[in-house]
Amino acid sequence: MSFQRIAIIGLGLLGGSIGLAVREYIPGAATTGYDSDPATRKRAAERGLADKICDSAADAVREADLVIFCVPPGAMAEAAREIAGALPKGALVSDVGSCKVAVAKALGEALPRNAVIPAHPVAGTENSGPDAGFAALFHNRWCIVTPPADADLQLLTALTQFWEALGANVEIMDAEHHDLVLAVTSHLPHLIAYTIVGTASDLEQVTQSEVIKYSAGGFRDFTRIAASDPTMWRDVFLSNKDAVLEMLQRFSEDLTALQRAIRVGDGDALFDHFTRTRAIRRSIIAEGQDDARADFGRGDHGDAGAG
Amino acid sequence: MSFQRIAIIGLGLLGGSIGLAVREYIPGAATTGYDSDPATRKRAAERGLADKICDSAADAVREADLVIFCVPPGAMAEAAREIAGALPKGALVSDVGSCKVAVAKALGEALPRNAVIPAHPVAGTENSGPDAGFAALFHNRWCIVTPPADADLQLLTALTQFWEALGANVEIMDAEHHDLVLAVTSHLPHLIAYTIVGTASDLEQVTQSEVIKYSAGGFRDFTRIAASDPTMWRDVFLSNKDAVLEMLQRFSEDLTALQRAIRVGDGDALFDHFTRTRAIRRSIIAEGQDDARADFGRGDHGDAGAG
Repeated sequence: MSFQRIAIIGLGLLGGSIGLAVREYIPGAATTGYDSDPATRKRAAERGLADKICDSAADAVREADLVIFCVPPGAMAEAAREIAGALPKGALVSDVGSCKVAVAKALGEALPRNAVIPAHPVAGTENSGPDAGFAALFHNRWCIVTPPADADLQLLTALTQFWEALGANVEIMDAEHHDLVLAVTSHLPHLIAYTIVGTASDLEQVTQSEVIKYSAGGFRDFTRIAASDPTMWRDVFLSNKDAVLEMLQRFSEDLTALQRAIRVGDGDALFDHFTRTRAIRRSIIAEGQDDARADFGRGDHGDAGAG
Repeated sequence: MSFQRIAIIGLGLLGGSIGLAVREYIPGAATTGYDSDPATRKRAAERGLADKICDSAADAVREADLVIFCVPPGAMAEAAREIAGALPKGALVSDVGSCKVAVAKALGEALPRNAVIPAHPVAGTENSGPDAGFAALFHNRWCIVTPPADADLQLLTALTQFWEALGANVEIMDAEHHDLVLAVTSHLPHLIAYTIVGTASDLEQVTQSEVIKYSAGGFRDFTRIAASDPTMWRDVFLSNKDAVLEMLQRFSEDLTALQRAIRVGDGDALFDHFTRTRAIRRSIIAEGQDDARADFGRGDHGDAGAG
């Protein structure tokens, strides 16, 4: 089996990219789309993010065999309740959320008659909204699928093939482990980036204009992810609280150790730490998860203004 | 006046880029180069990083009217002592170090007969060594010059024009303020990036292979600056200790506040914080200090493997 009628609920960066990718890579499949924001629906229709943009979530899912929720984690439960009366019994329910335990629970409780297999494509940019999506977003990115223990194998296979058709590599994982892995690879980095950008904005001795001017010294790397969608990230931290707090505790301990090394002038400890962190970047590049060019290939060799 | 015989001490990313940039943008000026590592000297000669690569620092500076130290902050004093006997009395001494108070002191003490005007081009990549440099590194980047109060105006003007010829925009600042500005725009970001990459490597519940695989969720942005030269960064933190510790203290307080918001479920506090950090990135892009393309323009629209 393969999905032929895909309903996308939420038409921002992820939802829009799925719609565009289905059109490009799964010819023959039909898409319907809905977003709770009328302005987003209008723009989605203009860009053709789905074959048909509907005025209610219920209308969008009425004939679907696959529904994908692309709304912030905190909005999943309500969005699911909106379609409960219209959803065909055989349709698979999935999503793209960055937290899997909380979302699986919310979707399962709201739609008890349907199979739910959550998924999380580890892909994105700092942009959001209906203009942000593009068909190639999932190319060579991982999509983590977190089926419940009793998941239907045929549906799981079909969902896996769906994501592979969009260009992703699929990995199966249990939801708890997913949430721990993402806490360190995504949630903690975002929290730290948001923090340092805030710290830099609040200084009295250094003006914001100076921070902006001299950001090429390193600061600007943090501002990209600190420009991500605030609603989504608020929900991520509230939905994956325990894992995030655990990772944050470890990070704070490590930062305190380096702070102490600076205070007492322990150059060897600093040098050793800074040496072992180089290898990870080489591995990330070797596995195709980042750009090997200096400075991420920004602009023309450091001339970011040309980008 | 303008400098015609430029000696570059240290032929890594910065020194090599200066040599290549002088050849490209200041026709007629002659460069000499020296590096304490024989293998670097050999490679520098092959790449033509300076017109003449010398076997001693003293030989490199013997006829110079401008000497630029491009060695880690902790190596400045010794490098300066090596040239003390050979340096012409009228030659200006400068550098490219990321800490200005400590470096000005080291250079001034080692070379009391010469004028010293420190400088810091806020430019770089995560690469280091004699293969890392390129002529356009300083294009549209800021170069902060920190003259002492009694600096010779003619020499200061000539140094300013030198950096402008290489494509940089020059800003004059006192050394203490420079060190505070860089502590927040460069030193703290590097320390935090080194920390989180170390934290992620040390987890027991999440494997290093998982961290690498799913790094596109945000983590990979931090690995770029955590791949920077360990010797240089050790020296930066030891040389700018007070300002770095002050910024670190503020960062830790802000992180604790967000941690508390997560723990008590204060979604409004998180949302407000995440909203105000978006504006800074827009300003950085507007001022030409970063690439406006999604994901820094990595690869082909998120397909980093293509880069």
